[in-house]
Amino acid sequence: MVIAQSGGPTMVINQSLIGAVTEAKKHGQIKKIYGSLHGIAGILAENFIDLRRETAATLEAVAQTPSSALGSVRRKPSPADCLAIFKVLQKYNVRYFFYIGGNDSAETTHIINEAARAENHDLRCFHIPKTIDNDLRENDHTPGFASGARFVASAFMGDNLDNRALPGVKVNIIMGRHAGFLTAASALARVYPDDGPHLIYLPERPFDEAQFARDVATVYKKYGRCVAAVSEGISDKNGNAIAAKLSKEVDSHGNVQLSGSGALGDLLAGVIKSSAKISRVRADTFGYLQRSFPGIASETDSREAREVGKLAVRHATSGKATSGSVTINRKPGKKYAPVYGLVALRKVSKETRHMPDKFIAKAGNDVTPAFITYARPLVGKLPVIGRFKGVPVKKAKG
Amino acid sequence: MVIAQSGGPTMVINQSLIGAVTEAKKHGQIKKIYGSLHGIAGILAENFIDLRRETAATLEAVAQTPSSALGSVRRKPSPADCLAIFKVLQKYNVRYFFYIGGNDSAETTHIINEAARAENHDLRCFHIPKTIDNDLRENDHTPGFASGARFVASAFMGDNLDNRALPGVKVNIIMGRHAGFLTAASALARVYPDDGPHLIYLPERPFDEAQFARDVATVYKKYGRCVAAVSEGISDKNGNAIAAKLSKEVDSHGNVQLSGSGALGDLLAGVIKSSAKISRVRADTFGYLQRSFPGIASETDSREAREVGKLAVRHATSGKATSGSVTINRKPGKKYAPVYGLVALRKVSKETRHMPDKFIAKAGNDVTPAFITYARPLVGKLPVIGRFKGVPVKKAKG
Repeated sequence: MVIAQSGGPTMVINQSLIGAVTEAKKHGQIKKIYGSLHGIAGILAENFIDLRRETAATLEAVAQTPSSALGSVRRKPSPADCLAIFKVLQKYNVRYFFYIGGNDSAETTHIINEAARAENHDLRCFHIPKTIDNDLRENDHTPGFASGARFVASAFMGDNLDNRALPGVKVNIIMGRHAGFLTAASALARVYPDDGPHLIYLPERPFDEAQFARDVATVYKKYGRCVAAVSEGISDKNGNAIAAKLSKEVDSHGNVQLSGSGALGDLLAGVIKSSAKISRVRADTFGYLQRSFPGIASETDSREAREVGKLAVRHATSGKATSGSVTINRKPGKKYAPVYGLVALRKVSKETRHMPDKFIAKAGNDVTPAFITYARPLVGKLPVIGRFKGVPVKKAKG
Repeated sequence: MVIAQSGGPTMVINQSLIGAVTEAKKHGQIKKIYGSLHGIAGILAENFIDLRRETAATLEAVAQTPSSALGSVRRKPSPADCLAIFKVLQKYNVRYFFYIGGNDSAETTHIINEAARAENHDLRCFHIPKTIDNDLRENDHTPGFASGARFVASAFMGDNLDNRALPGVKVNIIMGRHAGFLTAASALARVYPDDGPHLIYLPERPFDEAQFARDVATVYKKYGRCVAAVSEGISDKNGNAIAAKLSKEVDSHGNVQLSGSGALGDLLAGVIKSSAKISRVRADTFGYLQRSFPGIASETDSREAREVGKLAVRHATSGKATSGSVTINRKPGKKYAPVYGLVALRKVSKETRHMPDKFIAKAGNDVTPAFITYARPLVGKLPVIGRFKGVPVKKAKG
């Protein structure tokens, strides 16, 4: 078998890798366990490492380490790439291909699988889900999201306190190209009624700069401060991403670069400074830390990420399916429990899932309680935030 | 007594507050324990809360919560402010004033103390140290630094892995107006010999854009990637902060706004993109998360922050000193141990301490092993970073 990782890293993508590797060791039909470095680029370059040569201690340490231990890539295979890939896989007698990634990686797996069928290659292609964006179709949620959400919620808890200590307007830009789930997770930071984020802007609703300025002014008038969570993917009423106007870089899947720049935050801070008469306006862009910060992964997320890796190998070796993508849904009822499944690759590839309407407040600048109920069990327990009762001292005379 | 917090929040500034409050309860000469909201602004507005009315559980929860629970302020008192402050303090029969903050807050405490002497007011003024910048004179280190450093080191651990997975150039901007300690702490992220940050730029050395581009190109050639840590306070050879050219905001202590904008990072990413032929260049500005992220404070830092709060009250009530600033130094020898002291307010106010030369590598783009030895015991244990041994699979023939 060959396993590889693709697309943006997450805090738990290595759990899926190690889950697959430890499971593969249990199945006699898998003799060699090769890790391809940097996704399909590693296959094309015959750049494999032998994962059977790693100790159990190393496997465990890697599982708990964020980011893609095999390296990653953003590359959509051309028909010529597919032929080159098959040539390599035949040379190494590879019958199982596992690809851990988001919808673009599912598309890559699908393309390779279709080409394998057309060329009559004996290759089982399985996609293992991962994305902090939480935007894979056919899934209730995806591994990586809950840990990213945990970072975002924790960061907003601290940042809300910072803003409370030194009042002003604070705009924080959160990852999420088309889906607002990660930005929405900022709402989990609220503990006390006046806690931020006071406003949440998602890519699922058109963003209007004038309305944004009015919203901020309203909150500022009420609390003397305002914390806003804004998705990097916010778009105007014509569907054009605001950040895309500030960027020129596009990858082979057609995605414009949105992260790795503070330009959108600075633009929005400028909007507030010029429209409202508020002197202290700050913007932070949480950036890559949201997907790679070590030591704070969600326990549920870590466990589920491990499980989807294992399940992909079980499906592949069971003989019942020759390809597919492992899914996570949730058991109906009050107590959270995951339900794993397997769907056809084309069902999760390319297109993305958006925040359902029931999770978005009517005004388009917040989430609903239904979203909190959805996200809370995934993210787990957050840090305790203490606050003084704050009994005012009676004013003295004199 | 009145206690207040001032300047930028930290993850452990509430430990000092609660340390002082719990200690004050033990001293009979202190009848009332008032918290002034938003530093001296709260005194001027007679905006006090009664800290004796808080439960022990609340005090403990607040101690472990980041940011300034009493609110903060950046305000240098004028002579008229001092007179107004005394009027209020007399009205409430306040004889002890504790101010938790950095060098600007020490200056405020010093000004109030000098004015009190001149006006013959019976007021004991004590400064309790805090600053993530670690730039207070007379101290080996200051409460808040080690926890900020823990955030920065952890963030670089994850970001280095992210950059290893998807290679390119990554520039991260770190807080620290005049002192490079927090930026230097990024070096603690290194576990394996090729780990980033590969370059570290501090305000203590002149920053040259062309040299920066050459340094990055050299690292990129060697590793195929590069992670750079850059202080927000980097300045050109004439001592002008690069970020100050991009900003116009100045506070009453004369500090130009450097944080809360991604402009410097974007500028430096632009320098690399235009000079070197490297396509993937990203910049993140860690921003306010460095001083307020909950749940990851350093244990040593938390303990010492609590202790300096207690000691300030003990000094004030002992009768031996009528004013001063609590200091932390370190016992000579291999095993880390703090030594607490008390110095005159003027000795820590206004001017800042810089990174000593022995902590800065000769080339001016890295730290020395001496800095690591200095910082490691303060920051404590960091997350375990696993890595595959990575035994290459022998190339197949055919």
